[in-house]
Amino acid sequence: MRVSQLFTKTSKSAPADEVSQNAQLLIRAGFIHKEMAGVYDYLPLGKAVLNNIIQIIREEIDGIGGSEISLTALQQKDAWEASGRWSDDVIDVWFKTKLASGSELGLAPTHEEPLTNLMKNFIHSYKDLPAYPYQFQIKFRNELRSKSGLMRGREFWMKDLYSFSRNQAQHDAFYEKITDVYLHIYDRLGLGSSTYKTFASGGSFAKYSHEFQTVSPVGEDTIYVHEGKKLAINEEVFNDDVLADLGIDRSELVEKKAVEVGNIFTLGTKFSDALDLNFTDEDGTSKKVFMGSYGIGPSRLMGLIAEHFADEKGLVWPVNVAPAKVYLVRIGNEAAVAHADELYEELQAKGITVLYDDRDVRPGEKFADAELIGVPYRVTVSDRLIESGEYEYTERVNGETKLLTREQLLAKLS
Amino acid sequence: MRVSQLFTKTSKSAPADEVSQNAQLLIRAGFIHKEMAGVYDYLPLGKAVLNNIIQIIREEIDGIGGSEISLTALQQKDAWEASGRWSDDVIDVWFKTKLASGSELGLAPTHEEPLTNLMKNFIHSYKDLPAYPYQFQIKFRNELRSKSGLMRGREFWMKDLYSFSRNQAQHDAFYEKITDVYLHIYDRLGLGSSTYKTFASGGSFAKYSHEFQTVSPVGEDTIYVHEGKKLAINEEVFNDDVLADLGIDRSELVEKKAVEVGNIFTLGTKFSDALDLNFTDEDGTSKKVFMGSYGIGPSRLMGLIAEHFADEKGLVWPVNVAPAKVYLVRIGNEAAVAHADELYEELQAKGITVLYDDRDVRPGEKFADAELIGVPYRVTVSDRLIESGEYEYTERVNGETKLLTREQLLAKLS
Repeated sequence: MRVSQLFTKTSKSAPADEVSQNAQLLIRAGFIHKEMAGVYDYLPLGKAVLNNIIQIIREEIDGIGGSEISLTALQQKDAWEASGRWSDDVIDVWFKTKLASGSELGLAPTHEEPLTNLMKNFIHSYKDLPAYPYQFQIKFRNELRSKSGLMRGREFWMKDLYSFSRNQAQHDAFYEKITDVYLHIYDRLGLGSSTYKTFASGGSFAKYSHEFQTVSPVGEDTIYVHEGKKLAINEEVFNDDVLADLGIDRSELVEKKAVEVGNIFTLGTKFSDALDLNFTDEDGTSKKVFMGSYGIGPSRLMGLIAEHFADEKGLVWPVNVAPAKVYLVRIGNEAAVAHADELYEELQAKGITVLYDDRDVRPGEKFADAELIGVPYRVTVSDRLIESGEYEYTERVNGETKLLTREQLLAKLS
Repeated sequence: MRVSQLFTKTSKSAPADEVSQNAQLLIRAGFIHKEMAGVYDYLPLGKAVLNNIIQIIREEIDGIGGSEISLTALQQKDAWEASGRWSDDVIDVWFKTKLASGSELGLAPTHEEPLTNLMKNFIHSYKDLPAYPYQFQIKFRNELRSKSGLMRGREFWMKDLYSFSRNQAQHDAFYEKITDVYLHIYDRLGLGSSTYKTFASGGSFAKYSHEFQTVSPVGEDTIYVHEGKKLAINEEVFNDDVLADLGIDRSELVEKKAVEVGNIFTLGTKFSDALDLNFTDEDGTSKKVFMGSYGIGPSRLMGLIAEHFADEKGLVWPVNVAPAKVYLVRIGNEAAVAHADELYEELQAKGITVLYDDRDVRPGEKFADAELIGVPYRVTVSDRLIESGEYEYTERVNGETKLLTREQLLAKLS
């Protein structure tokens, strides 16, 4: 994309009421716009990052048999009354509204109830199990306070996957598999080395649930990390009982700040009991479907990645997530224009995404924008360099700059 | 995708309260699920169709310089009060809700106000114009009645594009261009031959707006079609004045029923006046930005396409929109399984999408499902045909069946 055609602009300041570092940076760099606390619009660069995150998650979930669907935000109360979660005392983040006819509706903060209801149309026999529907959907949560930018939104993107299994054994096999898939997702997002499977409190059907926590100075959760076993314990269940369970000594653990970037739950028959989701097993008996739920928040991940990797000059995107791979800076007149135009076309033809700064502004402004926007590789074409047949190549992550021939440049970027 | 892994099932009946033909068919075929009137979930096959429609629109809008964004559903009232559209008397389809703190919010039924407000951050000079942000977003409209299935939803997908121009001339040039792009979109969706640019009532800034109307027996609008000029007039502006304007004689027109599948409006400075969106022109004077808006409803299009092309056996998808290009039916035992598995892999490797009916059910059930689901080309592999080295190939649109060699089959499908 040409920067001249991008309608957004960078800015030296964020709104005065914006206290979170991720939102401040993303607003200044033109990725998002703030509608109100916890409610952000995605502008072209931000939409590109969000799409990249979503596509990585989609590929991984499709790879283990997920079926993508899209459930509605508007919810009637019946199913939620059946599960006991319609009351604002039980789910305290409901947004409620009304149909023109007067019936009360809610805006879904999660989707266990409507999906369990829906699956009653399709699950009758053990042959219909397992099933793994999932979606990327906008969730609404009426948080009293929302001061963490994209990391705790009132309207935000969630990947929610649900498993419907014949019994605990079929469930457990999937639960193990999804753990590996989640770790692979964080790897691809650039967070792998600092993300830990973390033991957290369970429910009626499992002693533990599991979170995925990324160790970060910007974290709000406290976890206890076992580096050797690459796992952690959330402080909410950090006690002798749990340590004994896991065969870990307190001295092997290090307390760290972390951000929750995903969670997986064994729901058991909680919702199939409440909503009567049954199937006939091979032996002819009627049984309740055994369920699990698996969340990852793409918008929260975008906020975390923004804040976690940022430096004093601005954003620093991992390459798989970046809105473009290359920021192409053009300095000079006709020769530089022709040369940069041609390189832009060639890189795009090779499938390399480029943000091409074709504006007539000072070089310093282009360099500052390149750093604030945080694209991984900056390439500069200038009148002076054309003469020597070279390109200036700079890595955003460490600022290292080299002069490369065209052949070297293309090898680096491919 | 293997039908055995698709968790949905076809059904002989739709919910008793569902009166629209498109929703009845789409529910029976397992494409959508009804949450309440006008509120439908998209199941895997329905999500695939919706994605195909969205991708065609996206490619065309990107092709003329559109920048994809994503605005929020939750809306504060300020901007809408400034434009005079917060009141339920002015927009009678608002869903309203409240923040935990008590402030009133609305769920966006359209996005002129927040986007005009947002663009004040980025439009300062004539050099910043034109700009063409657009989005695919879920809109909420609290319709008193909603009986047309996907064709009039309370929660539905909309492509809304907005133009920000320096003056009427720059606006008019884009308005002409978008007309051609819209007609090209309907062509790709299979609706080209029956869709007409239609004159409808304008506003303060233009004598007319334009709709795109698809002539269909399922239409609820009345239009007057001029076949030679490939245009139409909506009955709301069908008078001698308009006929004179267009140089058309009443006798040249034919009254038809049609469905609105898109609309384009010249907004002028209505919203930039209300929300103070100004720019400094080349001569140093401050001017209001000149705006337009351009809508297409992907979910409405899905409903129309479903209903428009359906026959007594079920859905009949145009190939660009279909959830898969081929429905592969397997009849027989080991030899047929191996043969069909291998063909499935080969077609997929060639980039041909396949719904592979690998279930152990009667052939009649597979054929009936293939017809109800409406995939364009059905290919049957059977023990009997393997011996003769042939495949049964059936076109859904006309039911024509041929026996083809493998070479002939691959040529047909490529």
